[in-house]
Amino acid sequence: MIEDSHQSRTNLSELGEFGLIDLLTKNLAPKLSSTIKSIGDDAAVLDFKDNQTLVTTDLLVEGVHFDLAYMPLKHLGYKAVMVNLSDVYAMNGTATQITIGIACSNRFPVEALEELYAGIELAAKIYNIDVVGGDTTSSTKGLLISITALGYAKKEDVVYRSGAKPNDLLVVTGDLGAAYMGLQILEREKAVFKVNPNSQPDLDAYTYLIERQLKPEARKDIPPLLKDLGLRPTSMIDISDGLSSEIIHLCKNSGVGVNLFEDKIPLDPAVISACEEFELDSTTIALSGGEDYELLFTVAQEDFEKIKANPNFSIIGHMTEAREGMHLVTRGNTKIPLIAKGWNAMEKEED
Amino acid sequence: MIEDSHQSRTNLSELGEFGLIDLLTKNLAPKLSSTIKSIGDDAAVLDFKDNQTLVTTDLLVEGVHFDLAYMPLKHLGYKAVMVNLSDVYAMNGTATQITIGIACSNRFPVEALEELYAGIELAAKIYNIDVVGGDTTSSTKGLLISITALGYAKKEDVVYRSGAKPNDLLVVTGDLGAAYMGLQILEREKAVFKVNPNSQPDLDAYTYLIERQLKPEARKDIPPLLKDLGLRPTSMIDISDGLSSEIIHLCKNSGVGVNLFEDKIPLDPAVISACEEFELDSTTIALSGGEDYELLFTVAQEDFEKIKANPNFSIIGHMTEAREGMHLVTRGNTKIPLIAKGWNAMEKEED
Repeated sequence: MIEDSHQSRTNLSELGEFGLIDLLTKNLAPKLSSTIKSIGDDAAVLDFKDNQTLVTTDLLVEGVHFDLAYMPLKHLGYKAVMVNLSDVYAMNGTATQITIGIACSNRFPVEALEELYAGIELAAKIYNIDVVGGDTTSSTKGLLISITALGYAKKEDVVYRSGAKPNDLLVVTGDLGAAYMGLQILEREKAVFKVNPNSQPDLDAYTYLIERQLKPEARKDIPPLLKDLGLRPTSMIDISDGLSSEIIHLCKNSGVGVNLFEDKIPLDPAVISACEEFELDSTTIALSGGEDYELLFTVAQEDFEKIKANPNFSIIGHMTEAREGMHLVTRGNTKIPLIAKGWNAMEKEED
Repeated sequence: MIEDSHQSRTNLSELGEFGLIDLLTKNLAPKLSSTIKSIGDDAAVLDFKDNQTLVTTDLLVEGVHFDLAYMPLKHLGYKAVMVNLSDVYAMNGTATQITIGIACSNRFPVEALEELYAGIELAAKIYNIDVVGGDTTSSTKGLLISITALGYAKKEDVVYRSGAKPNDLLVVTGDLGAAYMGLQILEREKAVFKVNPNSQPDLDAYTYLIERQLKPEARKDIPPLLKDLGLRPTSMIDISDGLSSEIIHLCKNSGVGVNLFEDKIPLDPAVISACEEFELDSTTIALSGGEDYELLFTVAQEDFEKIKANPNFSIIGHMTEAREGMHLVTRGNTKIPLIAKGWNAMEKEED
């Protein structure tokens, strides 16, 4: 879509590096009291007072993590921010600042980068974060976005992957598998479009799935909700690679095992019907789909009352002694070993 | 060199993403008390106590910022760290942690990434920083390195670009232009090698220049030296794009003008003789060459005694009222306007 000849096109080289930075960052005035100095010096200066600083980095690469054939640039900018903020929330922290690195070939006009930044700005506004620095450069091919997110938490509030104990309850927010099914639908439409560019797809039935893929929301609401409930998870992680892979991370880092109950995995009805249509097993999709950006955490048994009636949470299993292993307990009550089949960027490599 | 068929080659996909991360990060145990949690969770956790946090990001892109025909991967890893640390020192801070994002095509075997990481590790060791996170992914073409550096400074010690006053002295560390001349020599040798692959270049005379290009050192020593001298610069910036461009940044951010004296610009004898050989004007090279990673700062006139005899510093000019403009005062005592002709990554774009 960005190569639509009807759009205005300003070549990147017409602006130069500094002109481009000025254009892209003009709406990014800092608003947080922790941002002492934002864009415009050698480094940003932040003040987290007596809190601990959280920092996380992710790269998104065209042709590996996204396909501009169906990913609008504004959505891409938004999603790139979400991917990073999700990691800060998974530490039970407050996300406050990001830096943005963009490398793009001059196939992209200035207007394309403005679209990308519009998505970043929207995310910054909704999630109350400041964009405090970055680097924009050319690449010989394609588009790459590198985002580093910063945030903070009180020392006693930080939740690691390593604190789960046997008998803890395993809890997940939201529902799983929708982002992956959204991707399946977009890939199918792309294939149809290649054969017949005049086809008019009716995607209304898939709105939720496509939105979960193209415009995911990080769970900013969960850390304050946990605080309100007087609940401190014993371990926490975000679901980027699929439920099974993340559960295994929690187990390995905490030195525990798990029983995950298939019938407790939260699935949206749209995921179930899309799985039927694609002849896919919905449990497999939830376990391995990835990109859900929900939070997975463990809490002590005695916190059950605080969790049980809350529509944000599903209790999907419990932790065990490590020697008992990591298992999925199926609907038919069979125990099968849990294996990591998360989405692996390395498998998508091309020559 | 990395495509030498005698080297062992392990394909990236043989290891998978997690295997690769484990391999590359096995020597990166954190050593600083400010690193509470390093690699291995959703985000790193840092504790800067009552200091302010400094954060800066840079991208290095193959074919734009470096050429693997003459840039060994270990040097590249080292340099990528230097580029970022330099920005922290330019705030008068202490650099403490970095995160690393690497995107590479599977043209690179695992051994190439190990070389790159060996350079990063060496830099981390010498500069006393911890590698606390990152992301390694595939790209469809080439190699890209994205580094975010973190550091800290006491609130009252942070030096911005914006504090220079009229009559302040303009001071630069080290000498200028060598990195650019090193690049000219490497480009010439690459061209010679293309014509005659058996040529045996004698580069002994250019050792300093080539080292400044391939293995620059960030000025970690300057912030503590300034402290020892009881000297707080009124403004500071690092020289990545060339002296003139950085002076203009200081002037614009501080609302002042400048007189820069040509005969005071510090040049190594190797730069002067290489400029003669290449028939280039050494002042132009110092003004526009870039990649020196020296620090440029301003101090009040009354600090002259603290600066004058120190071999680390050259006083190269003084600041003026903004209305007097920004000028280079030549050896012939002519005033010519200072213009930014820094190295601009955008100009190097290819289709």
